[in-house]
Amino acid sequence: MALIGTVAAEVLIPLAAVIGILFAVLQWYVVSRVAVPPHDGGGAGKGERESDGGDDDEEDGVDYRGVEARCAEIQHAISVGATSFLMTEYKYLGVFMAAFAAVIFVSLGSVRRFSTSPEPCPYDAARMCRPALANAAFTAVAFLLGATTSVVSGYLGMRVATFANARTALEARRGVGRAFTVAFRSGAAMGFLLASSALLVLFAAVNVFGLYYGDDWGGLYEAITGYGLGGSSMALFGRVGGGIYTKAADVGADLVGKVERNIPEDDPRNPAVIADNVGDNVGDIAGMGSDLFGSYAESSCAALFVASISSFGAEHDFAAMMYPLLVSAAGIVACAATTLVATDATEVGGVNEVAPALKRQILVSTVLMTAAIAAVTFLALPRSFTLFDFGERKLVKNWHLFICVSAGLWAGLVIGYVTEYFTSNAYGPVQTVANSCRTGAATNVIFGLAVGYKSVIVPIFAIAGAIYASFRLAAMYGIALAALGMLSTIATGLTIDAYGPISDNAGGIAEMAGMPRHVRERTDALDAAGNTTAAIGKGFAIGSAALVSLALFGAYVSRAGIETVNVVSPKVFVGLLAGAMLPYWFSAMTMRSVGSAALRMVEEVRRQFDEIPGLAEGLAAPDYATCVRISTDASLREMVAPGALVMASPLVAGTLFGVEALAGMLAGALVSGVQVAISASNSGGAWDNAKKYIEAGATEEARSLGPKGSEAHKAAVIGDTIGDPLKDTSGPSLNILVKLMAVEALVFAPFFAAHGGIVFNHL
Amino acid sequence: MALIGTVAAEVLIPLAAVIGILFAVLQWYVVSRVAVPPHDGGGAGKGERESDGGDDDEEDGVDYRGVEARCAEIQHAISVGATSFLMTEYKYLGVFMAAFAAVIFVSLGSVRRFSTSPEPCPYDAARMCRPALANAAFTAVAFLLGATTSVVSGYLGMRVATFANARTALEARRGVGRAFTVAFRSGAAMGFLLASSALLVLFAAVNVFGLYYGDDWGGLYEAITGYGLGGSSMALFGRVGGGIYTKAADVGADLVGKVERNIPEDDPRNPAVIADNVGDNVGDIAGMGSDLFGSYAESSCAALFVASISSFGAEHDFAAMMYPLLVSAAGIVACAATTLVATDATEVGGVNEVAPALKRQILVSTVLMTAAIAAVTFLALPRSFTLFDFGERKLVKNWHLFICVSAGLWAGLVIGYVTEYFTSNAYGPVQTVANSCRTGAATNVIFGLAVGYKSVIVPIFAIAGAIYASFRLAAMYGIALAALGMLSTIATGLTIDAYGPISDNAGGIAEMAGMPRHVRERTDALDAAGNTTAAIGKGFAIGSAALVSLALFGAYVSRAGIETVNVVSPKVFVGLLAGAMLPYWFSAMTMRSVGSAALRMVEEVRRQFDEIPGLAEGLAAPDYATCVRISTDASLREMVAPGALVMASPLVAGTLFGVEALAGMLAGALVSGVQVAISASNSGGAWDNAKKYIEAGATEEARSLGPKGSEAHKAAVIGDTIGDPLKDTSGPSLNILVKLMAVEALVFAPFFAAHGGIVFNHL
Repeated sequence: MALIGTVAAEVLIPLAAVIGILFAVLQWYVVSRVAVPPHDGGGAGKGERESDGGDDDEEDGVDYRGVEARCAEIQHAISVGATSFLMTEYKYLGVFMAAFAAVIFVSLGSVRRFSTSPEPCPYDAARMCRPALANAAFTAVAFLLGATTSVVSGYLGMRVATFANARTALEARRGVGRAFTVAFRSGAAMGFLLASSALLVLFAAVNVFGLYYGDDWGGLYEAITGYGLGGSSMALFGRVGGGIYTKAADVGADLVGKVERNIPEDDPRNPAVIADNVGDNVGDIAGMGSDLFGSYAESSCAALFVASISSFGAEHDFAAMMYPLLVSAAGIVACAATTLVATDATEVGGVNEVAPALKRQILVSTVLMTAAIAAVTFLALPRSFTLFDFGERKLVKNWHLFICVSAGLWAGLVIGYVTEYFTSNAYGPVQTVANSCRTGAATNVIFGLAVGYKSVIVPIFAIAGAIYASFRLAAMYGIALAALGMLSTIATGLTIDAYGPISDNAGGIAEMAGMPRHVRERTDALDAAGNTTAAIGKGFAIGSAALVSLALFGAYVSRAGIETVNVVSPKVFVGLLAGAMLPYWFSAMTMRSVGSAALRMVEEVRRQFDEIPGLAEGLAAPDYATCVRISTDASLREMVAPGALVMASPLVAGTLFGVEALAGMLAGALVSGVQVAISASNSGGAWDNAKKYIEAGATEEARSLGPKGSEAHKAAVIGDTIGDPLKDTSGPSLNILVKLMAVEALVFAPFFAAHGGIVFNHL
Repeated sequence: MALIGTVAAEVLIPLAAVIGILFAVLQWYVVSRVAVPPHDGGGAGKGERESDGGDDDEEDGVDYRGVEARCAEIQHAISVGATSFLMTEYKYLGVFMAAFAAVIFVSLGSVRRFSTSPEPCPYDAARMCRPALANAAFTAVAFLLGATTSVVSGYLGMRVATFANARTALEARRGVGRAFTVAFRSGAAMGFLLASSALLVLFAAVNVFGLYYGDDWGGLYEAITGYGLGGSSMALFGRVGGGIYTKAADVGADLVGKVERNIPEDDPRNPAVIADNVGDNVGDIAGMGSDLFGSYAESSCAALFVASISSFGAEHDFAAMMYPLLVSAAGIVACAATTLVATDATEVGGVNEVAPALKRQILVSTVLMTAAIAAVTFLALPRSFTLFDFGERKLVKNWHLFICVSAGLWAGLVIGYVTEYFTSNAYGPVQTVANSCRTGAATNVIFGLAVGYKSVIVPIFAIAGAIYASFRLAAMYGIALAALGMLSTIATGLTIDAYGPISDNAGGIAEMAGMPRHVRERTDALDAAGNTTAAIGKGFAIGSAALVSLALFGAYVSRAGIETVNVVSPKVFVGLLAGAMLPYWFSAMTMRSVGSAALRMVEEVRRQFDEIPGLAEGLAAPDYATCVRISTDASLREMVAPGALVMASPLVAGTLFGVEALAGMLAGALVSGVQVAISASNSGGAWDNAKKYIEAGATEEARSLGPKGSEAHKAAVIGDTIGDPLKDTSGPSLNILVKLMAVEALVFAPFFAAHGGIVFNHL
C-alpha cells in the first residue's frame, strides 16, 4: 500500500546518513582551509598570507605573526587539556560501562533463570520468541554500542570545536561575517557528524540484530532499547562531569579575576583561564553532544519499541516499522538544505545580523522539515493501521502521525522562541533584571529567579499541547514521534548549539592572544549571539527530554504489564512524591559540587597571584596546568554521587517497591524535573545576558547602569556567577535524569516484573 | 460498643474548646500584668514600680521612664499600622467573600437546575437526600463562616502580638527568663484561642446544620467542606498580602539601612523600620494564624467528609463520626499540659536555654498527644468498621486509625527536627553556608540553594512514609487523620510560631527605644531562637498541607465520581504537568511583587535620607507613615494576581477540561509545590541564620568571618535578603496554593461532574 517498500527503506536511511557524514566532512574541510601555524610557534600559517585580501586587516600594526603563533599555542593548550580530561573520564566510564553491561545481562538473564530455550512471546503467547537470555545479551551489546557511540560523538565534537576556535578568532580579523561562517560551519560539522552516525549505527544494529532475531521483532526492538540506555548513561556522566568541570573553572576564574582583581574575562594572567576554555569544550560541546545523542537514541528506541508491538510489528511491515528512522533521515537532508541558507544563500554583514541569522536557521529548518515529514508520512505508511494502546488496539490514520511529529517539531520552535524572549537582552525580562542591579545583587537575584520561574509557563503549555494531541491521536507511539519530531532538526540544533562555545572560545583566544580591540569586539558579538542560542538549545533539550521520557515511561508501563498507574493508590502516589523530590536531591549534589570545586579553584588562583611574582602585571606566566588538574579531579570525583543517584534510583525503586511505585516515581521526576530544569537554565541565561547588557551599554538605560566595574555591574556579575551552575550543570543534567531513569526502567522492566517489589511483597 | 457515646461527644468537644479559650485568656491576663504606660507617654506604668525587685535593673542610669514611654509609643505605632492594614485588607476580602459565596451558591445550585425537591443520594441511590440547592446554600454559609473565623483568628493573633511585644522588651530588663515567659505566654494566648475557636465554630456548624439535614449526613458534611474553603481562601490572601507587606519593608529597610548606610537593623533612623515591624505582625502572625487555621479546618472537613460516606455515616454513629473533632479536642488538653511544662515546671535561666526550651515543647506535646490519641481512639471508636475506598468498602480496625493519626504526628516531629538541622547555625549546613561567604555573595547563594534542595529529602520520605502507612490502613480517611494528627498539637505549634515574631518585635522595640546593650542582647537571643522555630513551624505547615491536600484530593476524586486517576491517559498527564508548573508561576508572581515593592521602598528610604536634614545623625525623625503606606498599597495591589491564579486555576481546569484533567493538576501541584515550598523556606532560613552566625561570632570560625560590616558579612546580608521573599512570601504561600486548590476542587466537584470539561466534550 505504501510507496516506500522494504528495499527503499533499506537504501534511503543509510544513504541519508552517508550524505550527512559527507556534508560534515565538507564543512570541516572548508574550515580547515583557515590555516593555523603549528603550535610550537614556528612558521607562519597560510592564514596570514591569504589575509592580504582581507578587508580591514593589519590596520593597527599588530604583530600578526606573533598573534597567530599565540593563537596556535592557546588552541593547543585547550585541545590538550580537553583531550586529556575526556580520556581520563572515558577510562572510568569504560569500567562503568563494562560493569553495568554485566548488570544488565545478569538481571535480564535471570528473568527466565538463564534458560536458553524459546518461550512464549510477551504480547502474543501463541507464538514462540527468542529466550530472555538472548534478549539480555543483545541488550547488553546494544548498551555498549550506544555508550560507545555517545562517547565517540562527544569526543569528535570536542575535536571539531578545538580545531575551530582559533580559526574563528583568526578569521575575525577579516570581518565578522567570515568569522561567523567559520564558527557556524564547524558547528555544522559536529551537528551532521553526530546526527548521521547516530542514525547509521542504530540502523546497522537493527539489521545486524535482525539476523539473529528473524521475525521476533518484539525481542529485537526490546534489545535495541539498550542503545538508548547506553547513550543516555554516558550523557549523564558527560553532562555532570563536564558541567562541574566548566563551572568550577568559570566561577573560580570570575570570583578572583573579575571580582577581586578587576581584570577582564579571559585575561591570560588569570591562571584558571585555560581550564575555563577547556571546560566549554568538555561541558558545553562534548556533554551537550552526548546529551542530544542520548535524546535522539532514546526517542528512536521508544518509537521502535512501541511500533514493534503494534500492527507494524505484527504484520512485519518493515518500511512502516522504519518510519522513525525515515523521519530522522529526512531531517538530515532538510537540515543540510537549511545550512546552505546560512552559508551560501545569505551573508552576515555586521554584528547585528548574527543573532537573526541563527534564529532564521531554526525557523527555516522547522518549515522545511514539516514538508519532509509530510512526504515521509504519506510515502512510507499505509493509510491506516492499529497501534498498541495499553493493552487495547487503537486505529490510527497516517495523517495522524504527521500531526504527532509536527506537533513536537513546532512545540520545539515555540519553546525556542520563548526561551529567547526570557534570556535575550533585547527584551523586557532581562532588561528588568539588569535594572534591578541598581539596588544590588539581592534584587538582581530575586528578579532573576522570578524570570526563571515565569519562563516555565509557556514551554509547559507547548509541551502539554503536543502531548495531548499526539497522545490522543496515536497513544504512546504518538508521544515518541512528537519527541522525534522535536529532535528531527537535531543537525541544525547542534550546529547552533556548538556554534556558541566555539565563539566563546574564539573570544577567549582573541583576548589571550592580544588581538586588537576591533577584532575582540567582533568575537564578543559572536559570543553574545551564542549565549542566547545556547539557552534556546537548552530549551530544546529539555522539551525533547520531557517528550522522550514520557514515551519511554509509556513503553515501560506496557512492558512491565501495569494496567493503570492510578495516582490514588498508595504505591503510585508515594512514588510520585518521591520522584518529584529527586531533581532537588540531584541539584543539591551538583550545586554543592560546583561550589566546593570553585572554592578550591579560588584558593589556587589567589595563591598564584600571591606567590608568583609579576603575575598580576603580566610579566610572569601563570601555572595553568594546576587549575586544569583541579577541575579535572573535582569533576571526576564529584560526578560519582549524582550519577549513582540517577542510575540507582530506578533499580532500587523497582527492585524494592515494585513496578507501580517505580511508575509513580518516573512520572513525578518527569513533571517536577522539567520545571526545575527550565527555570534553572533560564534564570542563569537571564543573569548572564543582564550582565552582558550592562557591559555592552547598547541603550541609554544600560549605559546608566555601567560601565564595567560599577556597583550595578558588580551586582550583575554576582548574579551571573550564581547562574553558572544552575544553567550549565544542574539544569541540563536534569534532562538526562528524567530521560535516563525512564529508559533504565524500560530496559529493566522484565526484571522488575519478574522479581521486583520485594519490600511490599513482605508487608 | 465504643465507650464514648453521642452525649459524651456532644459534651467533651465543646468542653475542651472552652477550656482552651479560658487557658488563652489566662495567659493573656498574666501577660497584661506587665504594665506599659499609655502611649502618649504620660504616667509611668506599674512595670517600673514592680521592677524594684528585678535582678539587674537600672544599673546603668538609663532613663527608664523615658524608655517605657518610647516603648509604649512604638508599640502604639506598630499596632495602629497593623490594625489599619488588616482593616483595609479585610474590607477588600469582605467584597471577595461575598462575591465568591455567590459563585459557590450559583454553580452548586445549577447542578440540579436549582430544583428544590429532594433527590437520590449520590452514594446510595435508594435513599433520598436534601436538594442540591440546599447544599449550595449551606456550602456558601459554611464558606462565609470559615472565612470569618480565619479573619478573626488572624486579627486576634495580631492584637495579642502587638500587645505583647513591648511587654517582652520591658520584661527583658529583668532577665531573659522573664522576657521569654512573656513572649511565650502571649504565643500561647494566640495558639489556644485559635485552636479552640476553630474547633468550637466547626462543632457548632455541624450541630446547627444538622438541624436541617437530619440524617442526610452526606449532604451535611459536603456542605461543611465550605468551612475549609473559606478558611483557606482567606489564608491565601493573608499569607500573600502579609508576606509581600513584610518583605517589601524588610528588604527595603535592609538594602538601604544595612548595605548602604551601615546602620543596624531596627535603627529608629531608618524610615522603613516601623513598616518592617508592622509586617512581622500582619505577615508572620496574622498570615500564619490564618494559614494554620485553614489547614486545621480543611483536614477536619476532609476527614468528616470521608467519614460521612463510610460506615460511620451510613450507621449514624455520631461519636465515631466526631472522632476527628475528639482528636483535636484531646490535642487542646495535651497542649495545655505541655504549656505548663514551659511556664511552670521549668525555667529558662540563660540565653542558651531558650532554644532547647522551645524544642522541648514540640517533643513533650508529641509524646503527650500520642497517649491522648490512644485514649480517644479506643474510647470513641468501635473495634472495627468499614471505610469508603474509591467505590469499594475497606474493613478497618480501631488501632489502624491510631497508627494513622500517630504517623502524621510523628512525621511532623521528624520534619521539625530536620528543618532545625538545616536552618540552625548550631549544625554543619548553615556553618558551611556561612563559610562560603568568604568568597562572596555568589558562593553563599549557591551553597544556600544547595542546602535548601537537600533539606527536601528527609521530609519527603517522612511524609511519604506517613502517607503509605495511613493510605494502606485506612485509605483516604487515613490520610485525613494523618494530617489531623500532624495538626493535633497546633496549639503548641502556634505558641512557638507566634513566639518568634513577638520576640523579633521586642528586639526592634528595645533597639528603637534605646534600651541598654545587655537588654538588647537578651532580646536578640530570644529572637535568634525564634528564627529557628519559625523555620520549624513552616516545616509543619508544609508537611500538614501536603497531607491535607492529598486527603482533599482523595475526597474530590470520590465526590467527582472518577474511577481511576490514570497517569498514562492524556488528560491526567497533561494536568499533572501543568499542575506541577503552577507553583513556579505563582512564585514568579510573588517574588516579582516583593522585588518591585522593595525597589519602591528603597527609593523612598533613600529619598528621606537625602531630603530630611539631620535624619542620618538621628536629629530628625523619619516619615514612617509613608513607608507604611508603600507596603500597604503594594501588598493590596500585588496580592490580587497570585490570588486569582490560585482561585481560578481549579475552576478553569475543571470547567474547561473536566474532572480528570483537574485531578491530574491537583496531584501535580501537590507533588511539585511541596518541594518548592520546603526548599524555599529552608534556603531562606539557612541564609538568615548564616548571617546571624557571623554576627554573633560564637565560634572561632564565625569570628574569622565577622564582624558586622566585613566583606563576608556583607555577602551574608545579600543571601539573607534573597531568602526573605523565598522563606516568608513564596514558600509559605505555596502551602496554601496546594491545599486551597484541592479544597476548592472538592467543593465544586458536583458542579464539575455535572457541567465540566466543555473543551474536551467538543473535541
